[in-house]
Amino acid sequence: GFAKIDHQRETRTGFPEIIFGEGKDAEQIISIISSLQQNTNRVLATRVDREKADAIKKVIPDIVYNAKARTVLWKSESEPDFLYNGYIAVVCAGTSDLSVAEEAAVTAEAFGVHVRRIYDVGVAGIHRLFHHLEEIEQATVTICVAGMEGALPSVVGGLISNPIVAVPTSIGYGANFQGLSALLTMLNSCASGVSVMNIDNGFGAGYFATTIHKIHRNTELLGR
Amino acid sequence: GFAKIDHQRETRTGFPEIIFGEGKDAEQIISIISSLQQNTNRVLATRVDREKADAIKKVIPDIVYNAKARTVLWKSESEPDFLYNGYIAVVCAGTSDLSVAEEAAVTAEAFGVHVRRIYDVGVAGIHRLFHHLEEIEQATVTICVAGMEGALPSVVGGLISNPIVAVPTSIGYGANFQGLSALLTMLNSCASGVSVMNIDNGFGAGYFATTIHKIHRNTELLGR
Amino acid sequence: GFAKIDHQRETRTGFPEIIFGEGKDAEQIISIISSLQQNTNRVLATRVDREKADAIKKVIPDIVYNAKARTVLWKSESEPDFLYNGYIAVVCAGTSDLSVAEEAAVTAEAFGVHVRRIYDVGVAGIHRLFHHLEEIEQATVTICVAGMEGALPSVVGGLISNPIVAVPTSIGYGANFQGLSALLTMLNSCASGVSVMNIDNGFGAGYFATTIHKIHRNTELLGR
Amino acid sequence: GFAKIDHQRETRTGFPEIIFGEGKDAEQIISIISSLQQNTNRVLATRVDREKADAIKKVIPDIVYNAKARTVLWKSESEPDFLYNGYIAVVCAGTSDLSVAEEAAVTAEAFGVHVRRIYDVGVAGIHRLFHHLEEIEQATVTICVAGMEGALPSVVGGLISNPIVAVPTSIGYGANFQGLSALLTMLNSCASGVSVMNIDNGFGAGYFATTIHKIHRNTELLGR
Amino acid sequence: GFAKIDHQRETRTGFPEIIFGEGKDAEQIISIISSLQQNTNRVLATRVDREKADAIKKVIPDIVYNAKARTVLWKSESEPDFLYNGYIAVVCAGTSDLSVAEEAAVTAEAFGVHVRRIYDVGVAGIHRLFHHLEEIEQATVTICVAGMEGALPSVVGGLISNPIVAVPTSIGYGANFQGLSALLTMLNSCASGVSVMNIDNGFGAGYFATTIHKIHRNTELLGR
Amino acid sequence: GFAKIDHQRETRTGFPEIIFGEGKDAEQIISIISSLQQNTNRVLATRVDREKADAIKKVIPDIVYNAKARTVLWKSESEPDFLYNGYIAVVCAGTSDLSVAEEAAVTAEAFGVHVRRIYDVGVAGIHRLFHHLEEIEQATVTICVAGMEGALPSVVGGLISNPIVAVPTSIGYGANFQGLSALLTMLNSCASGVSVMNIDNGFGAGYFATTIHKIHRNTELLGR
Amino acid sequence: GFAKIDHQRETRTGFPEIIFGEGKDAEQIISIISSLQQNTNRVLATRVDREKADAIKKVIPDIVYNAKARTVLWKSESEPDFLYNGYIAVVCAGTSDLSVAEEAAVTAEAFGVHVRRIYDVGVAGIHRLFHHLEEIEQATVTICVAGMEGALPSVVGGLISNPIVAVPTSIGYGANFQGLSALLTMLNSCASGVSVMNIDNGFGAGYFATTIHKIHRNTELLGR
Amino acid sequence: GFAKIDHQRETRTGFPEIIFGEGKDAEQIISIISSLQQNTNRVLATRVDREKADAIKKVIPDIVYNAKARTVLWKSESEPDFLYNGYIAVVCAGTSDLSVAEEAAVTAEAFGVHVRRIYDVGVAGIHRLFHHLEEIEQATVTICVAGMEGALPSVVGGLISNPIVAVPTSIGYGANFQGLSALLTMLNSCASGVSVMNIDNGFGAGYFATTIHKIHRNTELLGR
Ligand SMILES: Nc1ncnc2c1ncn2[C@@H]1O[C@H](COP(=O)(O)O)[C@@H](O)[C@H]1O
Ligand SMILES: Nc1ncnc2c1ncn2[C@@H]1O[C@H](COP(=O)(O)O)[C@@H](O)[C@H]1O
Ligand SMILES: Nc1ncnc2c1ncn2[C@@H]1O[C@H](COP(=O)(O)O)[C@@H](O)[C@H]1O
Ligand SMILES: Nc1ncnc2c1ncn2[C@@H]1O[C@H](COP(=O)(O)O)[C@@H](O)[C@H]1O
Ligand SMILES: [Mg+2]
Ligand SMILES: [Mg+2]
Ligand SMILES: [Mg+2]
Ligand SMILES: [Mg+2]
Ligand SMILES: [Mg+2]
Ligand SMILES: [Mg+2]
Ligand SMILES: [Mg+2]
Ligand SMILES: [Mg+2]
Repeated sequence: GFAKIDHQRETRTGFPEIIFGEGKDAEQIISIISSLQQNTNRVLATRVDREKADAIKKVIPDIVYNAKARTVLWKSESEPDFLYNGYIAVVCAGTSDLSVAEEAAVTAEAFGVHVRRIYDVGVAGIHRLFHHLEEIEQATVTICVAGMEGALPSVVGGLISNPIVAVPTSIGYGANFQGLSALLTMLNSCASGVSVMNIDNGFGAGYFATTIHKIHRNTELLGR
Repeated sequence: GFAKIDHQRETRTGFPEIIFGEGKDAEQIISIISSLQQNTNRVLATRVDREKADAIKKVIPDIVYNAKARTVLWKSESEPDFLYNGYIAVVCAGTSDLSVAEEAAVTAEAFGVHVRRIYDVGVAGIHRLFHHLEEIEQATVTICVAGMEGALPSVVGGLISNPIVAVPTSIGYGANFQGLSALLTMLNSCASGVSVMNIDNGFGAGYFATTIHKIHRNTELLGR
Repeated sequence: GFAKIDHQRETRTGFPEIIFGEGKDAEQIISIISSLQQNTNRVLATRVDREKADAIKKVIPDIVYNAKARTVLWKSESEPDFLYNGYIAVVCAGTSDLSVAEEAAVTAEAFGVHVRRIYDVGVAGIHRLFHHLEEIEQATVTICVAGMEGALPSVVGGLISNPIVAVPTSIGYGANFQGLSALLTMLNSCASGVSVMNIDNGFGAGYFATTIHKIHRNTELLGR
Repeated sequence: GFAKIDHQRETRTGFPEIIFGEGKDAEQIISIISSLQQNTNRVLATRVDREKADAIKKVIPDIVYNAKARTVLWKSESEPDFLYNGYIAVVCAGTSDLSVAEEAAVTAEAFGVHVRRIYDVGVAGIHRLFHHLEEIEQATVTICVAGMEGALPSVVGGLISNPIVAVPTSIGYGANFQGLSALLTMLNSCASGVSVMNIDNGFGAGYFATTIHKIHRNTELLGR
Repeated sequence: GFAKIDHQRETRTGFPEIIFGEGKDAEQIISIISSLQQNTNRVLATRVDREKADAIKKVIPDIVYNAKARTVLWKSESEPDFLYNGYIAVVCAGTSDLSVAEEAAVTAEAFGVHVRRIYDVGVAGIHRLFHHLEEIEQATVTICVAGMEGALPSVVGGLISNPIVAVPTSIGYGANFQGLSALLTMLNSCASGVSVMNIDNGFGAGYFATTIHKIHRNTELLGR
Repeated sequence: GFAKIDHQRETRTGFPEIIFGEGKDAEQIISIISSLQQNTNRVLATRVDREKADAIKKVIPDIVYNAKARTVLWKSESEPDFLYNGYIAVVCAGTSDLSVAEEAAVTAEAFGVHVRRIYDVGVAGIHRLFHHLEEIEQATVTICVAGMEGALPSVVGGLISNPIVAVPTSIGYGANFQGLSALLTMLNSCASGVSVMNIDNGFGAGYFATTIHKIHRNTELLGR
Repeated sequence: GFAKIDHQRETRTGFPEIIFGEGKDAEQIISIISSLQQNTNRVLATRVDREKADAIKKVIPDIVYNAKARTVLWKSESEPDFLYNGYIAVVCAGTSDLSVAEEAAVTAEAFGVHVRRIYDVGVAGIHRLFHHLEEIEQATVTICVAGMEGALPSVVGGLISNPIVAVPTSIGYGANFQGLSALLTMLNSCASGVSVMNIDNGFGAGYFATTIHKIHRNTELLGR
Repeated sequence: GFAKIDHQRETRTGFPEIIFGEGKDAEQIISIISSLQQNTNRVLATRVDREKADAIKKVIPDIVYNAKARTVLWKSESEPDFLYNGYIAVVCAGTSDLSVAEEAAVTAEAFGVHVRRIYDVGVAGIHRLFHHLEEIEQATVTICVAGMEGALPSVVGGLISNPIVAVPTSIGYGANFQGLSALLTMLNSCASGVSVMNIDNGFGAGYFATTIHKIHRNTELLGR
């Protein structure tokens, strides 16, 4: 019954089931993956550390573990890597935010969306961002990941007109308050096209960006 | 130079300039509207109370004032009302949140997007929501406005697969902390397709939903 | 003198003494249980981890350890399991909140109250809740346990008219702030029949629900 | 349809519809009362100031306005005042908390429940509380209203075994933070039988206490 | 120069130097004690865990370690235990707050003040407090230590007229926020004779109470 | 009964009854004063604005209104101004904190204690404080009132050895958060002899200082 | 004595006395200005609204009132406008922050420092900032004033190497929390040369920038 | 390209690249140092614990590790230790704040600035500060490091007229909230010449002070 529900879910929404790995042990994750494999072509687990991933791989060898993103992905052999043309952009500032950015990117890819990673463009050296503006502008959606003061989405939002999904990270110290500073920055952005996810919620951003990437059939520009 | 920039802006992004009315007096708003009229077909001002709106209308009679949304909208005669087919949904729970919901709806309409208002569907009587599910599912994006504990987007998010933009309002008292409660609820939503705007930021939600509604040309489902 | 007081206490209120295990070592807990056994038929200790429980069981073999709830329960042989007819319902959303839900359930059972566990009904898949509505409606009281954004009690509260005791859990991350988000949600619930316990306070909810379950003799519907 | 729903609601739950008067003008409240009168025998509106109440009374003369509670109550002539035997107790400390205590008391009375008011028993003079202990112990439920540091429910909770509904008020200054201090006190109460409502939510406490007062038919002590 | 200053300090104020042990290793503490011994008859170190205390005792065998209070006290052989008549009272509720209460008591004793410990009198069983009222009333000052909701000082403050020093502890969980709840309770106490120390600052309370205990020579009741 | 209680209270504790004027109208205050006059020689009301004071004075002409402190004081003709020798010191930094400082001073005086006001000694010009050190050192207790960052008690506490009662005020802006900054400063003071009252609680400080000033009979330095 | 101190102060530090106008009435400000005029050539009062300024001007006609900055400045006839070469830059984003920016600029000018105002350069249109980079780079210090999310100092800090003084303003709504968002952003800035003032403290920034502008004589680059 | 950028950076701003060691392993730090060595004469890494430092030293033996500051510094043989005359002062209160103070001092020294350390001058013994006033007054800038209540910069700011950079530390407990108390104190300082860095941000203070120390050539006092 468990698997049956999931199958219906993907048929209806196009979203495979996702496993939140935190607080589950390797055996539990293996058992859920195995169950899901019978009814879906794509299984994603997030927040899985390397130790658990190794244990899973011993039982299910064809998973792919992304250590940065801490994700485990399984795809059936017949399943194509990508389901849509176009791409989303994942932009982040520094090396500390990479883990969240990768969680976002891998989630979108798990749903069959192309991702362009633009990872070297923090506000402290704004010229680096400008080299990538055209690539960002061509994305359907841009995910902006930033810790510390979280100013990046405001700057990007002032330069492009497509939707921006901002993800604050918990990187920082002192008056950062585990990401609160970046969260408030993003909620108060004076650039208009910016919406916000929970602190460190790369998965949510990847999922949300995918819901946007998939809606194209419902709108059509009227002739003017 | 001022007007020239705005004209370019609309050509490039399709977004007319918006005036934030709070803290500006009627004369200032009139002067900005007049300046913008020379280069754009649509001018929107938000956070305008009735007194100011009356003063503006005396000088620029063809504006439309929406008292619920507290918006002033001007369109040139030749400008069509809508520029896109399809629609976005604006969902809210009770009468107290109407002002924010209307700000969102009017903003999207000002950009030429059709809006369906579904305003009677609070969580305290969940069956009311179910009567409108099909209409919500057909929207490209759903804006969910809620005060108090802000649970509505979580429920809607569990039922549909299109993107949801959640807007907390400052309606409530006591441990509501002027909307903080609803804001945290939405950021922590256990439903996946939910992104969040600042408290009471109906404008931002309408703007953001429009950026989504307009991206349709960039994506196409690959054959499977 | 210590045991004498407890005996009187149970006679007067029907509540056996409860031991808060956190910060006490196994020897201390054993010594308190032994003392209580001489004057009461039921002894409950909460917040006991498995290591301590094992140490206690070696000395007092007829205790029952519930690993999910982290409770140690002892009952005298002659003591019946249940003292009341009717039941309370304990409702929770996901696997992460199970520990708190079980603490609530076991506490009520320790006081002789029947409990129905309804553990698969998170807001993200609201239909699951509806399958259990009748069972919930027949309960004297419903304990609603939820982490993340904590929306479950609001939805349940809109559907039933019996008292609801909401328990926020500390499950979540980022802007969850260790359960603050769920706590505020529950305090601001727009459904009326909802009262709130401290974060993770499953014991308090079970105790409080039992005080409600036991008051039946004092009220009687007047003829109309 | 509006009235029909309400009628069913009362038949099903025994709860008449309640109007939240804050943010509604007199005309709106009059119109809702009139509509409800056709299908129910009891109509209650809360958070109504005297000015509005006077305006309502001119149109609907048989309402009763309680200035302390800021409530408007209408009952059909045939409707008995009370529907249940037994009573709930409403306990509060000082004159500043009276408004919230009265909102709780009037709400319970509007639902047909007897209320005993015990209003002179603040913690700063604990002996006053002891004179009323027997009366409190006989209540099915006790509502404890307190501002400042909110210690009253803890003291009462240590003395009686029936359920206690604690309501923090926003009375205080400085580090009181508009009732946050009393709210935290009540959530952390070391007395077990205490659940908590939102700051200043007298209505919710009265409603919740009534749900408890009405459940008597579902439980019966088993023979021992 | 270091020791010289300390000697003057005690001559002037009667207070021996105190060592804050947290963050210092055993060697450092030993070295400071040794230095102080040459110029003062009493040396106190706080926040010293047993491991460090054992290491100190090996080098300076005539120290007294109080494991509950986590204090190390050294007195010269000739030094009398007590310097004043009368006593202060240290009152606390439960076993969890004992460590802070003992730190307060030991600090006052280290300054030569008699202390009466009254440790079994939490608000949840208020009658226990009443048995000790006379003893509390005879104290010059009462130190009230409480965690959880911290209601004890309010109750004591309503019963006696001598000064009360309230110390919140960090004992609790959830909405306790590491002692914030008890701290706010004490700052907002509706009993008048209550002043407050930082969370867990037993040392500060003992020191402050001693400053009060020592001022007796400056005031004399005028004849009436 | 009301008056009888108060009379006993003063006999027992030496404290006349105090009226908290905030939220009471002139008539209520007049009525309470009149009642108290029959059984006590001193009546104090705090938080009374000039308008109310004028109305009270019309009915009870021999009250004294202190506009800075916002207090109303009545004494019977026969009552001496002061009951004790010695004095307490009230120290504050700038003109903005005067109102709280005066409330403290007037409260102590109302209880018959001499007060020395030292009002020109903010931390920004520390030399001013040094001119008054001897006077402060001779006080039994020192009340330190400070807004903004509230550093004054720390500096005074490092210079004298008698007890210090610190009162944070709500004076400041921005990250002052209505006195939270000064409150935290005082709670964390690295000077030891400092206890803290609620923000703006001048009354509490005056009352507490008086409880200290009055205890002199209970302690006597033992011969050494 | 009052005036004498101030005279010494300016001789020693070069800083004239500044009057904090908030909470002082016109008469008080006039009296302080008059007193200061006898010993200094420059008198500045901040936080003075127009009504007070008009009243002051009637008595002291040669003051200059800046309505944006809400400052009153008086200079003796002989006093030169500027005392230093070089300049500081005051940068701000939008019209809402102008009042704080002007307070900073006027304060520096009152101390004789040249100021360049660069007021049209918010992050939402970053290109506007680039047109002014050279002018900013030539300033000794740059004051960056920003409300909303407060990202401007981070961007400026990444582009220039001179010291930056960031001033958050209270402009914004919702999760802005009266400037807390901008304050945290600036404290967490990932650009290194940024220090922070209190929310809305334009005066402090102008004063601090002047202390920097004046130190030039103490340092000299060593030959390399 | 990486190294090329850095080289330009130093030429332009005089600031060598700094490595934030937290979250990087020894190999990563070694690799960045090696890369930077090819283009700059000074390489600084902060937040490096001893274990990592030892690993780095094995590969790059001519680094200097400062265990208090937790910094790794490398300078080319030819590079002079100091580049400027004059000095900055680093002032701190107690031993607990030393680590942050040293991070500030070492950072300034890494940029070639002389530093005077004045480390024994906490507010609790204010006379110690006065012995060093002249040395502090002669500094171009003073960095004030303080934990607990953080009052030191206010006192120093009232005594000198040169710029003060205040750094709160996270030292303290209870209502200290990991440095929040000291941070708020410094932001609200009633002494004017004070700007603030993030909690524990010694590096930022050292960097910022250096930007001030280097600007001397741009300003010159005009003849008067
Ligand atoms: N209600 C609103 N809430 C937040 N931002 C708004 C709102 N209305 C307009 N804006 C933004 O404010 C900018 C204009 O601000 P201003 O130049 O002050 O009129 C526009 O570009 C919008 O992006
Ligand atoms: N004082 C009150 N506080 C909180 N909720 C209330 C109060 N009074 C009425 N309500 C709730 O508000 C709902 C009606 O809201 P409305 O439709 O806006 O009048 C009722 O169903 C009540 O549950
Ligand atoms: N447990 C404690 N909590 C707060 N302050 C303390 C404590 N123990 C000692 N102190 C203070 O810390 C100072 C000594 O600090 P230190 O020089 O670091 O040993 C003494 O003067 C005491 O005032
Ligand atoms: N706008 C301002 N914000 C903060 N402090 C100020 C401001 N204006 C003046 N001050 C300070 O307030 C002090 C004077 O306060 P007062 O004696 O109350 O007039 C001066 O020494 C200034 O340092
Ligand atoms: Mg944009
Ligand atoms: Mg969904
Ligand atoms: Mg209900
Ligand atoms: Mg009880
Ligand atoms: Mg008392
Ligand atoms: Mg002292
Ligand atoms: Mg820079
Ligand atoms: Mg200064």
